[in-house]
Parts: sequence; structure tokens; C-alpha cells
Amino acid sequence: MEQINNIQVVPCTNSNYLKPFTVHYSQNGTKKSWDFMRTHDSVSVLIFNTTSHCFVLVKQFRPAVYMCEWERSKPAPPQPEGEEGGEGSNPAAPEEPKAPQEGQEGEEAASHPDQPPASAGVTYELCAGLVDKPNLSLEEIARQEVLEECGYDVPVTKLRRITSYRSGVGVTGAKQTMFYAEVSDENRVGEGGGKPQEGELIEVVKVPLHEAMTFAYDESVPKTMGVIFSFIWFHSNMSPKYKISTNV
Amino acid sequence: MEQINNIQVVPCTNSNYLKPFTVHYSQNGTKKSWDFMRTHDSVSVLIFNTTSHCFVLVKQFRPAVYMCEWERSKPAPPQPEGEEGGEGSNPAAPEEPKAPQEGQEGEEAASHPDQPPASAGVTYELCAGLVDKPNLSLEEIARQEVLEECGYDVPVTKLRRITSYRSGVGVTGAKQTMFYAEVSDENRVGEGGGKPQEGELIEVVKVPLHEAMTFAYDESVPKTMGVIFSFIWFHSNMSPKYKISTNV
Repeated sequence: MEQINNIQVVPCTNSNYLKPFTVHYSQNGTKKSWDFMRTHDSVSVLIFNTTSHCFVLVKQFRPAVYMCEWERSKPAPPQPEGEEGGEGSNPAAPEEPKAPQEGQEGEEAASHPDQPPASAGVTYELCAGLVDKPNLSLEEIARQEVLEECGYDVPVTKLRRITSYRSGVGVTGAKQTMFYAEVSDENRVGEGGGKPQEGELIEVVKVPLHEAMTFAYDESVPKTMGVIFSFIWFHSNMSPKYKISTNV
Repeated sequence: MEQINNIQVVPCTNSNYLKPFTVHYSQNGTKKSWDFMRTHDSVSVLIFNTTSHCFVLVKQFRPAVYMCEWERSKPAPPQPEGEEGGEGSNPAAPEEPKAPQEGQEGEEAASHPDQPPASAGVTYELCAGLVDKPNLSLEEIARQEVLEECGYDVPVTKLRRITSYRSGVGVTGAKQTMFYAEVSDENRVGEGGGKPQEGELIEVVKVPLHEAMTFAYDESVPKTMGVIFSFIWFHSNMSPKYKISTNV
């Protein structure tokens, strides 16, 4: 299991990743404003291995999910416990993060007594990636992600588009396109796992077909809606071809 | 239809809504950092009207979706066209928004020639709301949203939990819980439409059961995954009770 410690939260004033903007506009003559974030569209892929009759998902530690779980488990903001705000600590603003801040000195693993287990931030997701290469089609980007994250080499022509939808409509509004890919053990050319040099620590996991619907609706397993939706899509659309348990 | 004009985009340095933070942590001994945003958990409700055999959705103009559509339609950043950056305009940073900026003076409706129609930002969504009232249960918050947005008064006991999942795992990681509510015309006590005093301009729309799956997979209609997933969930779980077209 993942070991997460030395956690320190600081306000982020100039992120390379999160760039808030405000749009001012008139809607039917009424002046309005909205804060939003620019982000990339994305693709995701439901991968089904026809050799082992398993779905292939990825699993990774998600700091945003972890912090969210931590805050939910601590409805009252923690007391500063006499700590002097060190470098990078938040000013005592009403909206400061509720999760406690830790010093980062030393190599010793430091964990907070209230800290949830790392597993609280480990989510199961479809293989997915950002649409950040303008010269590649959605299918080509999806193909690259399947190869990099899961180790399967799938021809673009074998990617079936399921549908597209808008995500985070309040904040980002990006378009996500979901594909379905059938693979076999013969398509396996590598271990997957993402790009460790870019800090990706992705674990490839298999969910057997007969356990899929139980897995989908097991709320104790953190996962994205994409996993649940795509499993139920498979059940509705592939059931003439493959048997799938509907034990939900 | 919505009339959207006088659009001006400016960097947002101190948002009341978007608050980026950075979490520093050690994962299995490796120091890492991640930028994330704190946000509230949320609830959503699939509403089915048993009198008219229609799903009840909400439809609204989403600035974030609109800006995203605009940028996608203009892959190359627009030229400044000799404009001097006025008050609130972006510095010429590499990451400035690609959508053009408009002056906001005067009451005259000003629209940019490249501006997409307002419909590009109008999305169909499940009735939904933020979990921002710590003294209310998820069911009670869901009930309030059904009343405020759609005008149906549903007892909490009639809300069936479908499942929960994590949204925006890269950025927010919030937990969303989805409910199912059967209503009848007798439960209709108001027009819905949200809280206009809070700037909400929500339209209540009905999707007939027999058109639901076609609607769900029609990519020309911007919608959230929640709509698609819940319709297919209904199809899989309620089909013994209600007939639903599977014409997809």
C-alpha cells in the first residue's frame, strides 16, 4: 500500500496547472460574472481484455481526493495547537484548508494523528488522458494512453467511441470523450504504469467481468463515475456478446 | 434562447469560489506536490415523473462550458488586433485565455464575430446542489434542490440512493452522491427555476421516457455524464417497472 506522509498544505497563488479566470458577460441584458478554470479536454477508455474476461482499470493516489476525504472526516477546523505558522503556512483566513499542516524538515516519515489512511485517496479510474496534443486525433491520444498506462498496443481502428459529455460544468466545462477498446493478452507489449519520470505512479488493475457490477456499486471503493457508467454501458450493450453478472 | 454578449475575460487572482492550494507530501519516500482546489461535495437527483412518464432535468447557461467551446472552436490564439490592453485585460502571458476580450462600456449588446451561439454553453443536467449545509443530511439537501430547481415537493423517504463516486479526481476530488426520485404531478408545488436572487437562471425540461436513450447518446446536446449514466441506470434497474426505448 501507499505510504503518504509529511503532508503540508499551502495556498497556491501561481499554479502552472490551475489558472482561474473571470468571465464578465451579459445574459439577456443582465450583467453577470463567473469564475472558471481553463483546462484541457480529455479522453477515457474502457478496456476489456477478451483473454481473461476482465476490465482493465488504473488505480492511483489522488491528492485532491485524499484532501477531500480528510476534510470530510474533520468537520471542525483543527486547532493550530500552538504551532507558529512556518514558511508556506496559510494565513488565518476563514477559508484556510482544514487539514492540518506539517513541517517538512527531515527525512523521517511524519504523519498526523488525524490523517486518514492513504487508501482514502486511492481511486479506481478508467485509463484516461488530457487532449493536449493538437496534432493528434482523440483516438490517437486514447491509443497512447492505453499503451502508456496499461501496456496494451491497440490499433486506433479498434477504438469504439461510446459518447462524450461535459465535466465540471461549474468550473471547467471541459469535454470528455469515452472510448471502448477490446484487447487480448496478445496486445500486451509492456507493463503500463504511466510515466514515472513525470511523477505518475499508476497501478494497472483487473476487474473480472463477473464481479464488475458489484464493484461498480461498492461505495467503499473510491472510483470515478466513468468506471460505473462504462461498466453499466458494457452490460447494456455487450451483454449479447459476453455474459455479465447483474447482481446489484 | 439565451442572449449572451459583452464578453470579457480577465485573470482571476482572488476568487471567492476557486481557491487553489498546493499540497506537499511524501509518497513512499518520494517528495511530491500537487495543486488542487477545495470544493464542496454535491448531490444530484434523477427525477422521474410517473404521471407524464418523463425525466425532469434542468438546463442552464454554463459560462465555463461556453468558454471551453469557444476555445475549442479557435485552436489558434486570436491576434490582439491593435487593441491596447484595457483595464482588466490579460497580460500577454503564454497562458492567457484564447477567447477574445470585449470592452464592457455602454448598454449596447456587443458580440464578437467569432463568438459561438449561446446554445454552445447551455447544458442539460440532473437537478443538483452543493453539500454546504452541515446540519442537513444528503437526502435533505437533495430534497431542497428538487423543490427549488424543479418545483416538486418530495418526501425524503422517497429518495433512493443510487451510488456515489469521486468527481474531478485531478483537481477537486469531491464526492458526489446520486439519488433517484419518483414524483407525480401531484407533487408539483411550484415552477422551480432555482433562486433568481442568487443569479440562477434554470429552466426545467422534460425528456419523455421513450426518447431518453436517444437523448442520452445525442452528442450534439451538451450534457453531463450524470444524465447519461442515470438514464442507463434507470433502463437497467427500472425496466421491469417501466418500458423504456433502447433504440441506441
